[in-house]
Amino acid sequence: MTDRTHVCGELNEAHIDEEVRLQGWVRRRRDLGELIFLDIRDRSGYVQTVFNAEISREAHRAAEDVRNEFVVEVRGVVRKRDEENVNEKIATGKIEVVAEELTILNKAKALPFQIEDDVEITEDVRLKHRYLDLRRPYMTDTMYLRHRTTKLIRDILDEQRFMEVETPILTKSTPEGARDYLVPSRVHEGSFYALPQSPQLFKQLLMVSGFERYYQIARCFRDEDLRADRQPEFTQVDIEASFMGKEDLLAMMEEMMARIVKEVKGAEIERPFPRLTYYEAMERFGSDKPDLRFGMELVDVSEIVKDSGFKVFASTVERGDVVKGINIKGVAGRYSRKDLDDLSSFAEIYGAKGLAWVKVEDGGTLKGPIAKFFDEAKAAELVKAFDAEADDVLMFVADKQRVAWDVLGNLRNKFAKELDLIDSGEFNFLWITEFPLLSYDEDSGRYVAEHHPFTRPVEEDIPKLTEAPEEVRAEAYDLVFNGYELGGGSQRIFERDLQENMFRALGFSDEEAVSQFGFLLDAFEYGTPPHGGIALGLDRLVMILAERTNLRDTIAFPKTASASDLMTNAPDTVSDEQLQELKLKVTAKKE
Amino acid sequence: MTDRTHVCGELNEAHIDEEVRLQGWVRRRRDLGELIFLDIRDRSGYVQTVFNAEISREAHRAAEDVRNEFVVEVRGVVRKRDEENVNEKIATGKIEVVAEELTILNKAKALPFQIEDDVEITEDVRLKHRYLDLRRPYMTDTMYLRHRTTKLIRDILDEQRFMEVETPILTKSTPEGARDYLVPSRVHEGSFYALPQSPQLFKQLLMVSGFERYYQIARCFRDEDLRADRQPEFTQVDIEASFMGKEDLLAMMEEMMARIVKEVKGAEIERPFPRLTYYEAMERFGSDKPDLRFGMELVDVSEIVKDSGFKVFASTVERGDVVKGINIKGVAGRYSRKDLDDLSSFAEIYGAKGLAWVKVEDGGTLKGPIAKFFDEAKAAELVKAFDAEADDVLMFVADKQRVAWDVLGNLRNKFAKELDLIDSGEFNFLWITEFPLLSYDEDSGRYVAEHHPFTRPVEEDIPKLTEAPEEVRAEAYDLVFNGYELGGGSQRIFERDLQENMFRALGFSDEEAVSQFGFLLDAFEYGTPPHGGIALGLDRLVMILAERTNLRDTIAFPKTASASDLMTNAPDTVSDEQLQELKLKVTAKKE
Repeated sequence: MTDRTHVCGELNEAHIDEEVRLQGWVRRRRDLGELIFLDIRDRSGYVQTVFNAEISREAHRAAEDVRNEFVVEVRGVVRKRDEENVNEKIATGKIEVVAEELTILNKAKALPFQIEDDVEITEDVRLKHRYLDLRRPYMTDTMYLRHRTTKLIRDILDEQRFMEVETPILTKSTPEGARDYLVPSRVHEGSFYALPQSPQLFKQLLMVSGFERYYQIARCFRDEDLRADRQPEFTQVDIEASFMGKEDLLAMMEEMMARIVKEVKGAEIERPFPRLTYYEAMERFGSDKPDLRFGMELVDVSEIVKDSGFKVFASTVERGDVVKGINIKGVAGRYSRKDLDDLSSFAEIYGAKGLAWVKVEDGGTLKGPIAKFFDEAKAAELVKAFDAEADDVLMFVADKQRVAWDVLGNLRNKFAKELDLIDSGEFNFLWITEFPLLSYDEDSGRYVAEHHPFTRPVEEDIPKLTEAPEEVRAEAYDLVFNGYELGGGSQRIFERDLQENMFRALGFSDEEAVSQFGFLLDAFEYGTPPHGGIALGLDRLVMILAERTNLRDTIAFPKTASASDLMTNAPDTVSDEQLQELKLKVTAKKE
Repeated sequence: MTDRTHVCGELNEAHIDEEVRLQGWVRRRRDLGELIFLDIRDRSGYVQTVFNAEISREAHRAAEDVRNEFVVEVRGVVRKRDEENVNEKIATGKIEVVAEELTILNKAKALPFQIEDDVEITEDVRLKHRYLDLRRPYMTDTMYLRHRTTKLIRDILDEQRFMEVETPILTKSTPEGARDYLVPSRVHEGSFYALPQSPQLFKQLLMVSGFERYYQIARCFRDEDLRADRQPEFTQVDIEASFMGKEDLLAMMEEMMARIVKEVKGAEIERPFPRLTYYEAMERFGSDKPDLRFGMELVDVSEIVKDSGFKVFASTVERGDVVKGINIKGVAGRYSRKDLDDLSSFAEIYGAKGLAWVKVEDGGTLKGPIAKFFDEAKAAELVKAFDAEADDVLMFVADKQRVAWDVLGNLRNKFAKELDLIDSGEFNFLWITEFPLLSYDEDSGRYVAEHHPFTRPVEEDIPKLTEAPEEVRAEAYDLVFNGYELGGGSQRIFERDLQENMFRALGFSDEEAVSQFGFLLDAFEYGTPPHGGIALGLDRLVMILAERTNLRDTIAFPKTASASDLMTNAPDTVSDEQLQELKLKVTAKKE
């Protein structure tokens, strides 16, 4: 096979009268008898070729046999299209190739779906024939966007003297965090490797090594029950730096995001990014990953309603809980009483016992089931607190602070989507800071790390680590992009004694800490520099940039919600010999 | 902590009188009483700081407490060193920093070994404290060389419009090739994922998708008994292209190698690289990865010796085997009769029954145990065939062709090393082509693929696939660098029927082929373009460029020969709960 002379999508008027040899797929075929038109497609785009029996009978005859998605080679000459046939919509629309020779390189049988963006197919069919699904323009484009984004991240980090280091995939199982994928060892019978949930320990050890600036586009693994936006293996942009303060790190990440958005979306974004403390984000938006492209902030009305006639509200405040609400602007006419009452079941998902609402009418009058409990003065106070006007709907949750946050935060997102309040052309980044270091886990009856056990406490809170662990704030920062948590980072503990205190706060005995993390504790005693870092979800970044909502669309060969690969049929049973070599027995019953 | 103002290694005369704040490790400490000198090191290099009690008593006192490898911050002023104290050997040797303030950021206890290149330590100690081993200059340099090499490869492939695509790590076990690492599935009880030995199938499927040019710096896994130059996980530069002929691919790879050698070693290499067919390489050098930086070619003397008086040689030729030899120049005086006789045990490793030798004396006389079997005419013929002169030693193997190749190929390398014939400043690349497609495996009693089952046969040999499989040549090419196999590639089969024939030649039933590779066979029917690709061992490339012989020195956190990580102690036992969740039982006896 001779090489092609040109790629399809780049042919234009400059090539007129040139002889070209193209190789690609038949995108579309139109047979007008004496004339057959084949659109030939390759990765660069497509071009129209014309087979005229008067020019080459043989080529015309060959063109009669081809079908969509055949792989062909076409030799011919570029010519200008007649004025009436010019297609301004495509790059090659002013020319066509008059074909003199056609070679079929490979045939294609009827496809399970068309190679077009707008086809109705189930995701299972797409995943089973992923190699065809990826042939569709928007999937190819998304993979190319992923490539460009990754390349840009590497270039920026390289400029900043970060060094890419590969860390092991076969590593050790640790009890913290999510469930590990295990890999049985054949050499060490009865022992297992674990696939890494992140390169956290290795990147910190590279700081001990004095590498100062490390990065890796790292594959990570979690054996969790999958939700729509989770995958058993995912990719993270993993960064760690020594002698680099939090401000420098955050500024660098902001520059990275700005350059990516500029390059990929052609848009400018403002820097520095806004910052909210965790508490402020929860209080104002009911979320630690708020989407700031719309308002609808939470309002605390506990003070107003505590002495109102509505006993449910008053008693909530009395027992130390809160009454909070949001104002959904200009929708009183749109939602019926039943619509609004039905939202209670939405509230229950997030743990609330119910949801109260009032509509605001002309002159600030309240209307609705609980309106009667508020006298004119209280009503005016509420209207003022919510900055409300006629046709607004106020929704209230009276509950524990966390429940109020959750319900209203989710309600806020729900209405923003329903009312189309979000400008999809806007790119909104912000940082969330001052997370709690620990939270109390009712199930296990102990404190767990909100980020991970290596996160540094805020300096002034360190003394509280033993006495009041829940009050300790972390030197941690999450990056939020359009309402998604894009990633998070922190300054790290780098002193053995502080790390030991942290493990104790997490309920580790000293023996457990040494048995699991002894090598890290040891390393901290050999001259470990102050360091910190961040990790971003690459799949999610690409998903947002590609304006998609399905994480699987950003991964070439993803797995289903049950962690299966429908194309290769993985996981699968293995031979008895393989299990015997590993000294393993499957105790599951055969189906 | 305030950020540093400068990095240590870049301070020079331009900074004289500037106030600087440095952060790094104490590389060396010299205490002269009133003056204390601390060399401060960071990734960029190191600089001398001086603590003078008369300038700052407090800083001087603090300097009394520091020890090697403490992490410190030093504030001070750069000044010119006195003429007699200038150190031309280091970049910062003309200046020093007069310290005004010292802060200890972290202490270091006594290290298990010094942070220097030339320390005597066992590899086990290095691996256990890998974070300290990596702190040694040559290890840091090697990791940086790896980073630069990787970055350059990505840049070159990006320029050539290759697209990086990540393929799965959790995939399906296939019976071909080496032993798979398995990962039990929790969701699908009794089923397993396998870690990929290479992304071969996925990259071919991306060609079916029309991606045209794919690459990945891919982690691969093989559960094999390890040799010195193998690791359970390794990294390969994985490349695949459609509509790109072999010549274009090879030329691109040659350019890539030239740019890497230029960038990393500052050397020019000649292109195009020489090519040898597999047969020629074996005949001339006894190896399919010959080092061409020295000669000592194999000479076939079967024709000369077949009617000589030496029955061992004559009968070997008679039964269809060969007598081949090499000429080791100018060493007759260096090796005793016993030295040369002892080489027989070396020959036996490679399957020979023995090794014969003669020394060449003045006037072309032969001397040695078998010299008497050759009359003057035969002796002259041998001397001519080997282009021999006085003081040369000729070594012979009379055996099957493959044994003769193996013994003499290895003997050639052994003597090159022993006699120091290799110029380590030379970089020798070549291609080996026309490998056999299949070889007969005595153990399993069937043919196995020399490269892999997806390698394309040479077009004219395709008809022999059924009748004479061992005669079929592959469209495959190996890249050899300084006598190491750096990688290999091939054009691929892209037609279902040819792929099915290949599986049959490998002894697969049609059912087995479909059950294991059905998705690939299916994919081939939907318009698969002609394609080919290559994979290079990144670890090995870095090893050669870094002029090392231990593959582990190129990997940040490698495993030992028994596939253990001595630092984290992986693999390790896991909890019963973990095994129960996976429905697995370990049948190995506890130690």
